[in-house]
Amino acid sequence: MALDSKQEFEPRDFKVVGTRVKRPDGIDKVTGKARFGADISAPGMLVGLTLRSPHAHARIKSIETAAAEALPGVHAVVTRADFDEIEDDDTIADILDNVMAGDKVLYDGHAFAAVAASSEAVAKRALKLIKVEFEKLPHVTDVDAAMAPDAPALHEGRANESVPAGMSSNVLARYEFGHGDIEAGLAQADRVIERTYKTEATHQGYIEPHACLATMNHDGQADLWCTTQGHYMVRNVCAAIMGLEQGQLRVTPSEIGGGFGGKTTVFLEPVALALAKKTGRPVKMVMSRSEVLRATGPTASSSIDVRIGMTKDGRITAAAAELRYQGGAYPGSPVEFGSMSAFAAYDLENVKSVGWELVTNRPKQAAYRAPGAPMAAFAVESTVDELAKGFGLDPLDVRLKNAAREGTRSSYGPTFQAVGLEATLTAAKAHPHWSAPLGENQGRGVACGFWFNFGGDTSVSLNITPDGTVTVSEGNPDIGGSRASMSMMAAEELGIPYEQVRTIIADTGSLGQNEVTDGSRVTFAVGLATIEAARAAKREMCRRVAMLWGIEEDAVEWKNGAVHPAGPNAGTHPPMTLKEIAAIASNTGGPIAGHHEANPEGAGVSFGTHIADTEIDPDTGAVKVLRYTVFQDVGKAVHPDYVEGQFQGGAVQGIGWALNEEYIYGEDGVLQNAGFLDYRIPVASDLPMIDTVILEIPNPGHPYGVRGVGETPIVPPLAAMANSVADATGVRMTELPMSPPKLLKVILSK
Amino acid sequence: MALDSKQEFEPRDFKVVGTRVKRPDGIDKVTGKARFGADISAPGMLVGLTLRSPHAHARIKSIETAAAEALPGVHAVVTRADFDEIEDDDTIADILDNVMAGDKVLYDGHAFAAVAASSEAVAKRALKLIKVEFEKLPHVTDVDAAMAPDAPALHEGRANESVPAGMSSNVLARYEFGHGDIEAGLAQADRVIERTYKTEATHQGYIEPHACLATMNHDGQADLWCTTQGHYMVRNVCAAIMGLEQGQLRVTPSEIGGGFGGKTTVFLEPVALALAKKTGRPVKMVMSRSEVLRATGPTASSSIDVRIGMTKDGRITAAAAELRYQGGAYPGSPVEFGSMSAFAAYDLENVKSVGWELVTNRPKQAAYRAPGAPMAAFAVESTVDELAKGFGLDPLDVRLKNAAREGTRSSYGPTFQAVGLEATLTAAKAHPHWSAPLGENQGRGVACGFWFNFGGDTSVSLNITPDGTVTVSEGNPDIGGSRASMSMMAAEELGIPYEQVRTIIADTGSLGQNEVTDGSRVTFAVGLATIEAARAAKREMCRRVAMLWGIEEDAVEWKNGAVHPAGPNAGTHPPMTLKEIAAIASNTGGPIAGHHEANPEGAGVSFGTHIADTEIDPDTGAVKVLRYTVFQDVGKAVHPDYVEGQFQGGAVQGIGWALNEEYIYGEDGVLQNAGFLDYRIPVASDLPMIDTVILEIPNPGHPYGVRGVGETPIVPPLAAMANSVADATGVRMTELPMSPPKLLKVILSK
Repeated sequence: MALDSKQEFEPRDFKVVGTRVKRPDGIDKVTGKARFGADISAPGMLVGLTLRSPHAHARIKSIETAAAEALPGVHAVVTRADFDEIEDDDTIADILDNVMAGDKVLYDGHAFAAVAASSEAVAKRALKLIKVEFEKLPHVTDVDAAMAPDAPALHEGRANESVPAGMSSNVLARYEFGHGDIEAGLAQADRVIERTYKTEATHQGYIEPHACLATMNHDGQADLWCTTQGHYMVRNVCAAIMGLEQGQLRVTPSEIGGGFGGKTTVFLEPVALALAKKTGRPVKMVMSRSEVLRATGPTASSSIDVRIGMTKDGRITAAAAELRYQGGAYPGSPVEFGSMSAFAAYDLENVKSVGWELVTNRPKQAAYRAPGAPMAAFAVESTVDELAKGFGLDPLDVRLKNAAREGTRSSYGPTFQAVGLEATLTAAKAHPHWSAPLGENQGRGVACGFWFNFGGDTSVSLNITPDGTVTVSEGNPDIGGSRASMSMMAAEELGIPYEQVRTIIADTGSLGQNEVTDGSRVTFAVGLATIEAARAAKREMCRRVAMLWGIEEDAVEWKNGAVHPAGPNAGTHPPMTLKEIAAIASNTGGPIAGHHEANPEGAGVSFGTHIADTEIDPDTGAVKVLRYTVFQDVGKAVHPDYVEGQFQGGAVQGIGWALNEEYIYGEDGVLQNAGFLDYRIPVASDLPMIDTVILEIPNPGHPYGVRGVGETPIVPPLAAMANSVADATGVRMTELPMSPPKLLKVILSK
Repeated sequence: MALDSKQEFEPRDFKVVGTRVKRPDGIDKVTGKARFGADISAPGMLVGLTLRSPHAHARIKSIETAAAEALPGVHAVVTRADFDEIEDDDTIADILDNVMAGDKVLYDGHAFAAVAASSEAVAKRALKLIKVEFEKLPHVTDVDAAMAPDAPALHEGRANESVPAGMSSNVLARYEFGHGDIEAGLAQADRVIERTYKTEATHQGYIEPHACLATMNHDGQADLWCTTQGHYMVRNVCAAIMGLEQGQLRVTPSEIGGGFGGKTTVFLEPVALALAKKTGRPVKMVMSRSEVLRATGPTASSSIDVRIGMTKDGRITAAAAELRYQGGAYPGSPVEFGSMSAFAAYDLENVKSVGWELVTNRPKQAAYRAPGAPMAAFAVESTVDELAKGFGLDPLDVRLKNAAREGTRSSYGPTFQAVGLEATLTAAKAHPHWSAPLGENQGRGVACGFWFNFGGDTSVSLNITPDGTVTVSEGNPDIGGSRASMSMMAAEELGIPYEQVRTIIADTGSLGQNEVTDGSRVTFAVGLATIEAARAAKREMCRRVAMLWGIEEDAVEWKNGAVHPAGPNAGTHPPMTLKEIAAIASNTGGPIAGHHEANPEGAGVSFGTHIADTEIDPDTGAVKVLRYTVFQDVGKAVHPDYVEGQFQGGAVQGIGWALNEEYIYGEDGVLQNAGFLDYRIPVASDLPMIDTVILEIPNPGHPYGVRGVGETPIVPPLAAMANSVADATGVRMTELPMSPPKLLKVILSK
C-alpha cells in the first residue's frame, strides 16, 4: 500500500533495465494488425454520427429531429435534451456541454446532435434531415482580443475570486507564482529586456482519430471500448454524465494510435453511450480527421510578456512574466502549468509569473505534451537568448551560470532535489554539435526545458503462471512503451529474462483505479508499483519455500531469481527457482501473485537542453532544420530506444509547432484548415535525424531512479528553433509559427 | 493466501445472499447483444475451416495441399506437419492428436487439415482441393465390443500397470474403490440382484458452437478470444502445443452459450493459432453443429454390471459394480468418477466398484455435468429400486435406511462431514408429489444422486472505485450465474447493495491462474476467494481510517458497511462509510483493493433426490413426463433463481439422456445423426415445469456454507425416469435411451 511505499533510489547493477529489448507492439502496429479504437464490432451494432455547429458562436433556437427519426434505418437521435443536467460538478457539466451543446454552440464544430443508424450512409442522410435554427452571436478567437473588456462573452459569472473586478467575463482565473522583489532585482541588472510573444494553437496530430463502441443494458450496466489515454477517466467521467455508478461501467482501452495528451478527456464516448441507451443496441462512433481538428482539443494559443534583467556577466537578477492562454470555449487552459514552469530552469532570487486563463470561441483545449510549458519556454528562452547574445556571452554559459540545481528554491515553490539541468548543459557544451561550423544563412539555437512529471493513483497486479512465466496487468494505455518497460522492471526484480514477462493493459473491471496516462507519470508510478508487486510476489514465494523447508520465513532470502536458505540455514537446501516454485504453487496454497496500489509522490522533475541548426532560404522564408540534438536527464533509461523515441518525437512536434502548425480561423470564426493537407505537420522528409544524448541522474524517489521522460522534449524546441532562426537571420521571431510567409515578411521588413 | 484461508462456516443473517436479484447477463443473452465466441472480428482477419475424416479408423497415407494453397485467397493450409511433436506430456500429445490427426484418423469427424482463407467460400473450395489418401482400418464403437481381446486396436501399449495382461489394448486403466467383504455381505442378504445396464453417449448440446479468433506475432506473443469454460486451461494447453510460454499467450473468454463440461478442453484453438502463426494474420474459426456433434466431446457410453444384496427390511448388505466406460479415441473416460460415485449415496459395510477405461473409434469424450456419475447412478438406483419394489418397500424408506450421513465412511474412501441426503429424502417423502394419485399407464420413480464438488486454483481481485462502488474480477467463465453470485457475496461482505457491485470475467493477462469452471467449483471456491478479497479490502479500509483518526488499527472495526471506532474508542468518531473512505482513497495512500489467491479444499459434497412421474403410450412406447420434482442440498442458495435453474437444467438434460438422446453409429462407424433434427434433445413442449425444493445444510468448509450445485441435478434423472417407466409399465429398461421404438419393443416382448 502507498503508505508503506515511500520508495528510495538504491543503486544496483541492472541486468534487464537499460537494455534494448524487442518492443511487443511494433509489428502489430505497423502491419495494421493491432486493434485500434475503430477495430471493433458487436452483434447488431449501429453507426453513430455527430452533427456539428457551422458557426463560431450561436444560440440554438430550435432543433427538429422528427424527420431524421422517421428515416428508415435510423434508430435514435440524441440532443442535449437526452442528457440529465449536471447539477453539482462544473467540470463534468462543462464536459457534457462540450460533447453535446446546450442552448448555445460555442465554436465551429461544436456537437449539438447525433444519430444512430443501421449504416453510415443512413446516418449521413439523417444528419441532413435534422433542422436547426441558430441565432448567430458575436465571437472571439484571439487570446488578446478575448481579454478586452468589451469582447464577446462566452459565459457570464464564471470567473473565480482571483480575477479583479471589471475584467472581461472571458477571464476565468489568475495565477501567480514566484518570490523575491522583481523591481529591486531588475534595478541590479545591466540590461532589462521586455518582450511580448505569441503562439498559435496546435493539434496533437495523433494518427488515430477518436473512436468508440458503447453498449448499455436496461439496468444501467454499460461497456465501452475506446481509444484513450485513460480508461478510468473515461469511466468516471461517463458514469457521472450518464448517471451510472462507476463500478457498473466497464471501459476497455483499445491499442492507441497516438494521444500526446489529446486523449485525456472524452468526446464521442458519452454520446455513444446515450445512443446505446436510447436504442438498446451497441453503437460505434468514429471521427473523421476534420472532426478531430475542429472539435477535439488542440493546445491553447498564448500571448506572453516577459521582463528579464541580466548583469553583463550573465547573471539573471530578476525575471517576470505575464502569461495569457486561451483554452477554447471552456475552462482548463494550461496557463497554471505555463506560469509554474516558465522560469523553472533558473535559480533566481527574484522571480514572478502571473497567468491569465481565458475562454474563446474555439474547441476546448486538451493537454498536449507538457501542457502549457512550451509556450512559456519559448518566451523566456528567447529573451534569455537575446540578453546573452546582446552581451556577447555563450548562451550555454549563461544558462549554466543561472541553472536550477539541487537545493534551488524553484520559481513555483518547492525546493529541488537532485536534478539534471547542469548535466544537460555541460553535455551540450562538450558535444561536437555545439562547435560544428555553420555556413551562410545558417544559425544555431539552444534552449532549455522543464517538466514536473506526475505520480497519481496506480494499481498493478503481477501474476505468476504455472510454467513460471509472468503476466503484469497495468491500467494505463501504453503510449510510449510502458508494456515493455513494466515487463523489464518486473523481469529485473524477479531475476528472469524479459521474454518471460508480458504486460497487458487491463480494463476498468479487472484492476483498480489508475490516473490517466499523462504528465509522464507511467514509467515512474506504474514502474514503482510493478516493482512493489514483484517484491510482494517474491515475499510470497519466500513464504511458500520456507513452509516447504519447515523453516522461518526470515530464514530464507530471494537471490538471482530463486529462494535460498539464508543466515545460519545457508546451504541446508538447494535454492528453488521461480520456475520450480511456480510449478508446485497449486500444492503450496494456490496461485502466486503480487499486487500494489499506490499514489506515489516523488516523480522527479526533468530538464532538457536542445541544440537546433537551421538554414533559412532568404527568398522564400522557408526554414530547413539542418541538425538537431536533444540532451535530457531521464533518471534511468529503462528502455533506451523508447527514451530516444520520446526525445525525437517531442523535438519533432516542437519543430512543427515552431515552424508551420497553426489553427487558422477566418473572420467568421470558422476553422480554415481542418485537414492534414492544410494543417501542416512535419513529415520525415522535412527533418534530419534527431540526435539524442541520454543523461541519467537518478530520481531519489524511485527505486531504480526513474523519472518521467516524455513531456520535456517538446518544451525547448519552440525557443531553440526561434533562437536558431535569429542566429541565422538576425531577425527574432516573437510569434509562432515561423512559417515561410510570416518569416519572409519580417526578414523583408528589417 | 491459501494457507491462511481454511475457511469455516459461520452462521449469519444474510442481507443480500439468498435474495433473487436481477441477473446481469439475461437481457443481453436473449436479445443476442452478448458477445459470444463468434462475435468478434479483427482487422485483416481470415476464416479458418477444418477438413475432417469421413472414416471411423484409417491410416493417412498422404496429404496433398499444394492445389489448395495455390487457390487465390488461401493464405495457409496446416496439417500435423505444422506442429512440433509433443515429447514429454502424453495428455498434451493426445489433445494435439485429437485436434489435428497424425498418421491415423481415429473417428468419423477427426480433423486432419485446416485452411485459412480470405472468406468462408474460398476456404470451403480449398478444403475440397486437399487430396488425401486413406487406408481404411477395422473400427470399433461399442464399449463392450472394444473390450474384446480381438477388438480392433486404436493404440498399442497405452494401458497402465493396473490393467491385467492379455486384455485388449483398448483397455487403458482399471480403478477400484470400496471396503469390506462383498461376498460375505451378499451372503447376509435376503435377495441379491445382478443386472447389466448400458447407456449411450450423449452430447452436452450447448447452443453455441465452438468458436475462436487467434492472432500471433512474430516473437511468439499470441492472443486468443474463444468460448470456453476455462481460458487458463486454454492458455496452458495451447501454450504447450504451440511451444509458447504461458505468460505470452493471453486468452480472453467470450460470453459462453452453454458448456456443461463440453468446453473444458480445446478443439479449434490450437489450429487457429497455428494458422495465425503461418499466415501472420488473425484467424477466426467457428464450428458448424455437425462438427460439434462429430468432433467435440460427448460423454462416454457405458456398460455396467451391478450386484446388490438386501435384507427384506431394506438393509443393503453389500453392493458391487463393474463399470466399463469408453471415452472415445483417447484416454480420459470418466469411469474413475463413475466408480467413486456409484455407491456414494449409501452407508455400506461392504462395497466395491471396479472401473475399466476404454477407447473406441469415437470422438474423444469431454466432461458432461457430473462426468461419469449419471450412468453409475442409473445402474445402482435401478437395482436398488428393483430390490425395494421386490420386497414391497417404499423406495424412499429404503434409501433413508441406507443413506450416507455425517460420519459415513464413503464408498470411495473419505468420511463425510455434514451432508444433506437424508434431508432430501425426508423432504421428498413429505412432499405432495410423493403421495399424489397416478392414473392408468402412469408411474412414479425416485432416485438419488451424488457429486463430489471441486475446489482448485482460484484468483480474485476486488477493487473499490472512487465513487465507492465495487468491481470484482474473477477468472472463471460464468456458466451458471457466478457473476451475480460473486457480486452478491461481495456486497454481503461489504455491507452494500448488490447493484453497487459488478463482477467481470478477467482474461488470463489480468488475473492469476484459475482452474476450469467445472466440478461445481465456482460458487464455492471463487465465492470463498471473493469473500476473502472483500475482507482484505475491509482490513485496508480499517487501516486507512485508523490512520486518519490517529488511532491503532485494532482500535477500529468494520460494521454495516462502515468503519467504527471500537472498544475504548467507541463513539470518539462518527463512523466512515465505504463511500466516504473511497472518496478520499487517493489522499490516504491510493486505490483500495482486496486480492485473494487460493486452492481451497472443503468443497462440500452434494446429494439430491428426484421424483419423476411418467405416462407411457402403450401403442407407441412414447414416454410423457407428467411431473418432476428435484430436492437437493445446496449448502446455501446464494441466488435461488440460479439454483433452481441448475436443478431444472440438470433434470432436463438427464431426462433427455434417459429418453431420447444418443449417438447413433452405422456399421461403417460413421455418426448417423450429426444434427439437432436427428439428435433429439428435449424441447420446452416435451416437458412439464420442473419443480424444485432447495435444502440448505451448510457446508462446514465455506464461510457462508456454500456447496456446489450444478452437477448433482443430472445424476438422478436417468434412474428416476427408468424407475418411473418400470412403475408405469412393469418393464425395467436396462438400456438407455428409452426411446419409443426401444421401449415399445420391450413392452411388446413382455
